[in-house]
Amino acid sequence: MSWWHDLPADEAFGLENLPYGVADLPGGPRVVVRVADHALDIAGLAERAGMESGRVWDSPSLNAFLDQGPEAWAAARAWLQETLRGTERDDCVATHLHPLADLTLRLPIDVADYVDFYASEHHATNVGRIFRPDSEPLTPNWKHLPIGYHGRSGTIVVSGTDIARPSGQRKAPADPAPTFGPSRRLDIECELGFVVGGASMIGEPVPLDHAWDHIFGVVLLNDWSARDIQAWEYVPLGPFLGKSFATSISAWVVPMAALASARVALPGQDPVPLPYLRGDAAYGLEIACEVDWNGTVVSRPNYRDMYWSPAQMLAHLSVNGASIRSGDLFGSGTISGPEKESRGCFLELTWSGQEPVTLADGSPRTFLEDGDRIVLRASATGANGSRIALGECAGTIRP
Amino acid sequence: MSWWHDLPADEAFGLENLPYGVADLPGGPRVVVRVADHALDIAGLAERAGMESGRVWDSPSLNAFLDQGPEAWAAARAWLQETLRGTERDDCVATHLHPLADLTLRLPIDVADYVDFYASEHHATNVGRIFRPDSEPLTPNWKHLPIGYHGRSGTIVVSGTDIARPSGQRKAPADPAPTFGPSRRLDIECELGFVVGGASMIGEPVPLDHAWDHIFGVVLLNDWSARDIQAWEYVPLGPFLGKSFATSISAWVVPMAALASARVALPGQDPVPLPYLRGDAAYGLEIACEVDWNGTVVSRPNYRDMYWSPAQMLAHLSVNGASIRSGDLFGSGTISGPEKESRGCFLELTWSGQEPVTLADGSPRTFLEDGDRIVLRASATGANGSRIALGECAGTIRP
Repeated sequence: MSWWHDLPADEAFGLENLPYGVADLPGGPRVVVRVADHALDIAGLAERAGMESGRVWDSPSLNAFLDQGPEAWAAARAWLQETLRGTERDDCVATHLHPLADLTLRLPIDVADYVDFYASEHHATNVGRIFRPDSEPLTPNWKHLPIGYHGRSGTIVVSGTDIARPSGQRKAPADPAPTFGPSRRLDIECELGFVVGGASMIGEPVPLDHAWDHIFGVVLLNDWSARDIQAWEYVPLGPFLGKSFATSISAWVVPMAALASARVALPGQDPVPLPYLRGDAAYGLEIACEVDWNGTVVSRPNYRDMYWSPAQMLAHLSVNGASIRSGDLFGSGTISGPEKESRGCFLELTWSGQEPVTLADGSPRTFLEDGDRIVLRASATGANGSRIALGECAGTIRP
Repeated sequence: MSWWHDLPADEAFGLENLPYGVADLPGGPRVVVRVADHALDIAGLAERAGMESGRVWDSPSLNAFLDQGPEAWAAARAWLQETLRGTERDDCVATHLHPLADLTLRLPIDVADYVDFYASEHHATNVGRIFRPDSEPLTPNWKHLPIGYHGRSGTIVVSGTDIARPSGQRKAPADPAPTFGPSRRLDIECELGFVVGGASMIGEPVPLDHAWDHIFGVVLLNDWSARDIQAWEYVPLGPFLGKSFATSISAWVVPMAALASARVALPGQDPVPLPYLRGDAAYGLEIACEVDWNGTVVSRPNYRDMYWSPAQMLAHLSVNGASIRSGDLFGSGTISGPEKESRGCFLELTWSGQEPVTLADGSPRTFLEDGDRIVLRASATGANGSRIALGECAGTIRP
């Protein structure tokens, strides 16, 4: 019996998970699937198994696989699970398993368009209270549509990439004029990112009932945010340089198929949304996240608290006829729950810096200091009571 | 003497222009350069001339050429001008010139990130008065930085592509709840789009003085806008579905080298911007545009009236360390001048639909009706008094 036949019951990257990534392997970067602390070279295995491998697996991104659509995704997963569970092919499998410690992981997708949503009622309410204290915290449109905006695809980086502190213009209300310099209010946003597969035609919306056919999988996403830059620039056309300097995502894309047991009803939508946003596909996901700041877990948001479903976000994104492409990525927006300990960004957690948090070493924090390291982690319950982890999303601030 | 040696003095696609595009040619789509009403197959010519052609010209987009940077751009232009002006190579040239009437043109670039700015003071002031009548028309940040936001790269289409009227949520202030349906206030925005070449590293801003080294050329851009959808969605995170359904650009990219004679001083910036936005590179361009609605020219904006320089936009875009890539595109925002006849969108031109314009056939218009055709055109003065046209940007609305 090989080691992958006998993984511990709590192994969160076991055979019910099997997330995909891209690793530098001998011969060049190509698609791998994670099995515990190893990466399986799919192209190598497929060739040995006599399968047509071609451009899908021997590729520096998941995009060609994403293009193939849900039937191919299911077939690939079934083949991998069967192969890994089988005994007769052990030699073949073992040859193509590489310890993760020996590998460099790359950005798993060639990101086409990136949209970031704002789907947590708790987050939007908190931010509204902080940024616009004299107005209703939620704008009048918030419960009618999932608010979103386009972000910068070219600055999406893989977990582990250092984050340079951005400079920019900032102006506090009392300042007579803006000044330029490094951001003093550098923040995180703990989000899920959904990876889109399969293209649609321009002019043809993706209806809610078909949305999940185009959502291949999920990553953890840290939407690094310079609050001082954002506050000065975002009226009237939205966040720009306060966000565009970097967005980190996990190296591993967990297929939605691994998260079927995590489906839950949404917390409830009042008013009932317009018909194009209604349907059985509008479910949520029970995924427990944690935000680790220099080794101290400072927040534990759960994705089940989100107001809008990922399927609603995709249906909304395309309802005007905007086409989608394999490699599109959409973020959920900060995941925040009702309690202070479940707030997914430091703007909220420290209430705009007024209520510092204390790390395990006794040091107080409001926003990020140079050298600080953030690790986002998340897990859910998978098939047969298994544990399904998302790939961690880590980054360290450099000056 | 061949016909391209004897072009009329007012030929706007003569040897001082030479814009690049991508055409479907025998053997597949590849890069061409326009000479009057013909397209020159550069890969074919280069091969005959014994030059290493390779992936740069035999490519379905300009991106590989854009990657090569300003010295290669200048060398290619000098070689093309010399070859076309020479006499000894006429046979060689003639073989590779194809009448445009026989060709299908494609989107000339594989668009990486798309950013749209808001750089006309006249436009921003008019829109502020219309959308926010109870506030100062310009937000406090407007004269300190070029306001911009990211748009959708995947729905940028080439001139001539029909535009499907988008549906979406809209809610007039007096309506009790939003309704869903086709946009009733479909508008245009007459803009220039700047095509970026050469990548920068994340964390390393492109300074103003180097900005033009990364701006290869210019297209006309129509930022189709559904004002009713936009008005309901855009607070607080900016325009999204009101813009993302389609953006049209010219099939031809005019190199900045062709527009050296069009450089003009900006109208004036008060207050003086922060140092990273100051320098000799912050110039404007004298480019006369026109908006043609079903055959009637309804507006004549000139790019010289823009408040912010393209170089300032690129320096701002990257000052937070955001990297740029070949194929990035940034729009200027609507080009509007001080007079009513120079307003570059119908929201302004008809003052939110209150002052219809009358087309040549006597029909009144406020916003776009199904079947309406918009053609944007533009031209400038080039070297030796030549005329330099930008490629037209056309689109017809279908239901």
